[in-house]
Amino acid sequence: MKVLASFVLAASAFTLAAPAQAQFAKPEDAIKYRKAALTVMAAHFGRVAAMANGRMPFDAGAAASNAATAETMSKLPWAAFVEGTDKGETKAKPEIWADKAKFIAASEKMQGEMTKLAAVAKGGNIDAIKAQVGATGGACKACHDDFRKE
Amino acid sequence: MKVLASFVLAASAFTLAAPAQAQFAKPEDAIKYRKAALTVMAAHFGRVAAMANGRMPFDAGAAASNAATAETMSKLPWAAFVEGTDKGETKAKPEIWADKAKFIAASEKMQGEMTKLAAVAKGGNIDAIKAQVGATGGACKACHDDFRKE
Repeated sequence: MKVLASFVLAASAFTLAAPAQAQFAKPEDAIKYRKAALTVMAAHFGRVAAMANGRMPFDAGAAASNAATAETMSKLPWAAFVEGTDKGETKAKPEIWADKAKFIAASEKMQGEMTKLAAVAKGGNIDAIKAQVGATGGACKACHDDFRKE
Repeated sequence: MKVLASFVLAASAFTLAAPAQAQFAKPEDAIKYRKAALTVMAAHFGRVAAMANGRMPFDAGAAASNAATAETMSKLPWAAFVEGTDKGETKAKPEIWADKAKFIAASEKMQGEMTKLAAVAKGGNIDAIKAQVGATGGACKACHDDFRKE
């Protein structure tokens, strides 16, 4: 229960050492959950990125709303990378659990960049959004390169 | 663009008539997105329900946080039930598009009940939470009964 409470009270808390049972009935539930959270995040981030690179017309309100949702979503997946969830329908590399500190740092870097994007998108300046989309996308990619199988 | 803007500016707006292309590159992207949003919602609602029915020890802070996240998630799936997304990896019944008004009403009922749950959970009264978990779960089930294949 302490683990669950710390998860939901501080969404960025990273409970890698916790058993899957604490928040998810089965390891596959944790895997399904984290993939789902990342799917939703990617959809909303993708719309901001599409505006930034001209594939979609820029709309300040839409950019701000999508970035805000992406920021909310960016906090969710990490608590689901519990021990025992490295097998099954997942592209998670063993390095996530072998080098926890590095994975936590990478996940926090991405969350930080997504928070910056939400702030910048609220401001409505397309050039600032473009720059921050690049920084945020870079943080996504860096973590994938190290911790996600092809 | 108008469709996207209305979606993100009013998350409860229901754009059933919009082409999938407006927000999702392919119909399967829309299907994957709405399933992901519902998966994340169910995980957080499920924790509140588990506390309500005694399968998990009651923790007021955890209940409030999980209910708040479930409420946020409850607003997301609907814009992805676009025309042309009734085929493929989906349990969506054709009635969603054949009786749009009823589906919209059912989705709005669930969102309303989830909003009430978030408010009640914030209050921290376990008996009130129990009652509202029942009402919210009932709204989930009613929509599934009518609009989701087994």
